[in-house]
This record gives sequence, C-alpha cells and structure tokens, in this order.
Amino acid sequence: MIAPGAGASGEDSLIARYFKPLATDPGALGLSDDAAILKASGEDVVVTTDAVVEGVHFLSDDLPDTIARKALRVNLSDLAAKGASPAGFVLTLALRSVDESWLAAFARGLGADIAAYRCPLLGGDTVSTPGPLMVSITAFGRVPEGRMIHRSGAKPGDHVVVTGTIGDAALGLDILKKGRVATALAGDAASREMLVGRYRLPQPRNALAPALRAHAHAAMDVSDGLAGDLAKLCAASGVSAVIDLPSVPLSPAASVVLAAGAFGMAEIVSGGDDYEILCAIPQGALVEFSHAASAAGVAANPIGTVIAGASAPKFLDAGGKELPLARMSHSHF
Amino acid sequence: MIAPGAGASGEDSLIARYFKPLATDPGALGLSDDAAILKASGEDVVVTTDAVVEGVHFLSDDLPDTIARKALRVNLSDLAAKGASPAGFVLTLALRSVDESWLAAFARGLGADIAAYRCPLLGGDTVSTPGPLMVSITAFGRVPEGRMIHRSGAKPGDHVVVTGTIGDAALGLDILKKGRVATALAGDAASREMLVGRYRLPQPRNALAPALRAHAHAAMDVSDGLAGDLAKLCAASGVSAVIDLPSVPLSPAASVVLAAGAFGMAEIVSGGDDYEILCAIPQGALVEFSHAASAAGVAANPIGTVIAGASAPKFLDAGGKELPLARMSHSHF
Repeated sequence: MIAPGAGASGEDSLIARYFKPLATDPGALGLSDDAAILKASGEDVVVTTDAVVEGVHFLSDDLPDTIARKALRVNLSDLAAKGASPAGFVLTLALRSVDESWLAAFARGLGADIAAYRCPLLGGDTVSTPGPLMVSITAFGRVPEGRMIHRSGAKPGDHVVVTGTIGDAALGLDILKKGRVATALAGDAASREMLVGRYRLPQPRNALAPALRAHAHAAMDVSDGLAGDLAKLCAASGVSAVIDLPSVPLSPAASVVLAAGAFGMAEIVSGGDDYEILCAIPQGALVEFSHAASAAGVAANPIGTVIAGASAPKFLDAGGKELPLARMSHSHF
Repeated sequence: MIAPGAGASGEDSLIARYFKPLATDPGALGLSDDAAILKASGEDVVVTTDAVVEGVHFLSDDLPDTIARKALRVNLSDLAAKGASPAGFVLTLALRSVDESWLAAFARGLGADIAAYRCPLLGGDTVSTPGPLMVSITAFGRVPEGRMIHRSGAKPGDHVVVTGTIGDAALGLDILKKGRVATALAGDAASREMLVGRYRLPQPRNALAPALRAHAHAAMDVSDGLAGDLAKLCAASGVSAVIDLPSVPLSPAASVVLAAGAFGMAEIVSGGDDYEILCAIPQGALVEFSHAASAAGVAANPIGTVIAGASAPKFLDAGGKELPLARMSHSHF
C-alpha cells in the first residue's frame, strides 16, 4: 500500500503528495497505514479488477488524466453492470520514473472521477518498472445481500437490451490509428473527436445500477464487443439469442461511417471498448425498466430476444439474413 | 475480471483452465462473471494491495511457483499485521506471452498457498504486456468491526516486539547477486539456501493475527527494513523508540555473516523483504502475548521500548552507542 512515513524516499513523498488529497474516505486512513478498511454494513461487497497497459489498452501519447479516468471507469462499468453502488477502489501504478507533472495530471483526472462517481480512493501501491506504464485497479461496490446481478439468469423470452450506442470506441481507435474511418470522416472533425472521445473516455452507466437490480435477469458490460459479450452472457445463462441488427443503436457518426462502407456492421458488433450495459429484461418489465433508465439519464434500447438453445446468438439484418461474424470479440492478447 | 465464455480466445481459455480450479469459493462464481462477491457478515473488510515486478521485486530466473507465492504472501503479511483473517484475493497478471508450462507452475504454487493460508482466489485480470512480468494482488481480510490494528496507537512504555529473524532476506538477495555474503558463506550451502529461501519465499505470520488483535497497540509488517518501518510506525503513533541491537533476533547464518564482517548491523536493520511483524505491546501484556505467539508457532521477541518524542528511533549497541544509519529502508524506486 502507498503509506509513506519517516523513512519514505523522495519519490514516495511525491506520490503521497498527489494521492493523499484524494483519499478522503475515513476507511483510507489517509493512506497512512498498510491496509484500508471497507465497511460493509450488512451488504455484499462486489469486487472487480481490471488493468490497462500502455501500448495495449491505451496509447503512449494519451494524456495522463485520461489514462487515470479510463482505468477507473472500466472498473466502474463492471460495478454498474452488476447493479452495485461504487464503494471505493485501490490503485496499483507501475511507473518507469516519477514525473511530477505527469503525476499531478494523473491525480487531477482521478480526483475528478472519484468525485463524479463517488468512488473513493482507499489505497494503492506504486512500483517501479522498466517496461510500459500500467494501471491496475480493484474496485468495490455494495449491493443488498444476495442482490448482485449475474451474467447467468437470462431466460427465453427476455428482451436483450443495450445502453447508449455501439461501435463508437472501435471507430475512435481506428481514427487514432489513421485507418479507414479517419478517411471516411476526413471532413467532419466533430464526429472524429466524438468517436476518439468514446475510445479514450468510457461513460460507465452507474446511474443504471438501481434499475438493473430492480428489473434485470442478467447483465454484464460490453467491453470486448457486443457479439462476443452477448455470447458469454448467453453461455452463462444456458440460452441463446436473436438480435435485430437494425435495432442496434448507432451514433450518427457511426451511421455515416457504415453508409460510406468504411466499416461493416460485423466490425461494429465485434469491436471493443463500448463500456455499455447489456442486459436481459423480462417481457413484462421492459416499459418500467426503460422509464427508470430514462429517469437515470441513460438510453436503453431493446435489440432482440433471448431464446432457448445453446447455439451462438444470431444477428439478423432487415431482410432476416444472418450476419456472418469472422470473430465475435476483441482480444487484447 | 478473468471470465471466459463462448467468445474467449485460445489464450483466455488456457488461463481459465489453470485458474478456475483455484476459485472454489462460492463468491468467486467460478470466475464466470464480471465480479466476485465478498460476504462481510457484519465484520470490517481489510483491503491491501501489493504488486511485484520482474527484475525489481523478483529475478527473471525465479521459478513461477515461487513468484506466485511471493506475490500472494507479501499481501498476506499485511493482513497478518493488521490482525485480519484472510478472506480472499484478486490477481492481475501482466504477461508477455501465454506459456502453458509457466502458467501451470504458477497456478500450482498459488494453489498450494491458497490452501495453506485459506485465502481463496476470487477473480482477476490477465493482460498482455510487452514489458516485464508483473503480478498485482489485492487481498481481503476480515476483522471484527473496528478492530483492525493500525500503525498508529503505540504508546510510550510499550515493548517493541518483532517476530522471526531480521535481515535474512537481504542477505539472500546479496547471495543471488553474488555479493559479499556468497563469499562469506562459500563453504556453507545449507545457510546460503536458507537465506535465499527467505528472500524468495516470505513466511507471513498470519497465525499471529488473533494475538495481535488481543494485545497489540500498533503493528505493521517489516517489508522495507526494520529501521525504516519502525520509523513509520513511530511517526504514525507520534512516538519514538529505543532499540537494543543485541536483542534484534538473527538467524545463525546471519550471525556468521555479521561475525565475518561481510555485512554490517546497519545493513541488517535496513534491508528489505523480511515480512516479519513489528508491533507495540503494552508492558503488562508481554507475557500473555509471547505465550499466544508461541502457541501459534511464531517466535516473537522484545527488542526495545517505545518512548515519548518525535525523533527517529535509536538503535543502541551493547555499549549503548547509537548505530549510524546511512539509510533506514530499502526503496524499490
């Protein structure tokens, strides 16, 4: 744990200077101890962990505040999908060197999201590495006892519902890599910026957690591509699904890219980094769930139906023809 | 989180094959979800996180089972010092490539310690890195509400007590680096092996947790050197301390190295990786604490006294002369 004291080196003190002000939760003990205390108050603690590596999950020239916020947000997205309220997180930072202005910007970005998502910093560890920068976060949430939403639990007849829009982050990454999307949107800086923003800074749907707890049979976040993640949810639930491709929500920019033929629908539904919520909502609950989502400021759209069976989910176009998927998800390996 | 499914790549499946059998706790959900559930049952959850990096905290030719166990044990050591019973952990593994025999050995070592310390694997994340191997663990413990042992709390008059022996791991690392200790012990393979073992495989004192909860005013684990860690404990408690150097427990091998002049006492008390417990035990409780430690199979020896004041702790030799310390602790930066 980050816990400097009389014997701390200059680097440790520097790190403490930037992180201590973020650790305002009483359980963080001001980052002055070897461990933090997480009060559970009779609720279940939901634990999730996700790491991001320079050159793999973010680009070397990404800004430090964006790196910090993405690292936290990918974890917040998991908590949201499980119906959990954020309770805090611990951070492991592997750095090549201690650069004060970098650290200051990283801590500033982290602090903004700590406040926005009410997810306090409880502790951490900073290690030296000769290799790429890495940020590993373990985040905690709270749910009433036994009420975490699982991947399993989807039932035939449930609506398959997805939040926000799908594919934007994959298009944004393509722009950063100067791919076909950059060319298709050469004259539209605002759309390019929006898509890149969707890649760099996910918008976790934590406001949706209470509605998921109230209504969802099953949920997960879409991080590795809608098709692959839906296949995982179906496998965990012992069901299959049929998706109506025209119902998959797309941003106006994604629609332009699709129309221009720069990206195909298969790439849209198998691209990574959406950080939207995919869930199974029982037939009778769809209206109420949609209202609750709206009230929480989250767009949630039905895109298909859970069916019995063990086959991979099918994605059907407007003519009822199945979309062939060369790969269903994005793997960082 | 490690949560493979229908869309998982070959590497993901391989990782799942080795880690899933370790995740037997119901809260791990068989590593098949995005998060784990940690039941708190009215107790406080103690959270600690520590990462190890190849070439910094362990050597490139260390065996995978030892790397796994050291990564877990440095976290278990923090839980022990806080008086917490292990409740589980999540693991982030950054790998250059997926090597099946390496993973198998890593998982085997981890599994042995999961069983020995009753600390179940709850989840994790595996990421690809072009850089050094890194293992980041966040571990959880449980303590009765409000009963975590802090660094702060030591009071003038308390005995300063330390478990096990001090300095062995620093000597072991020196042997691995073919330093002076290797020469001093050239004819004594058994001692060399013992010292190297102390560096590679810490012996966390989790059996001592109940005795610490019952008696200690303050505690922390000794990971960055006795002198520096004592200074941190004193600073957190607003006290100072006087240590009787001849009382600092040494292994027979360390005594030989000291007598040969290959290492000085200053290096012994500022070397890292001891993973022993340093604690402040009130005067009247020492006998009972020592008995409880003995019953738990842990040697615990008083080495000095907490005193009022804000100066750095003093280490006095048999003649009452203060040991000059060029540095008080080991920093990995």
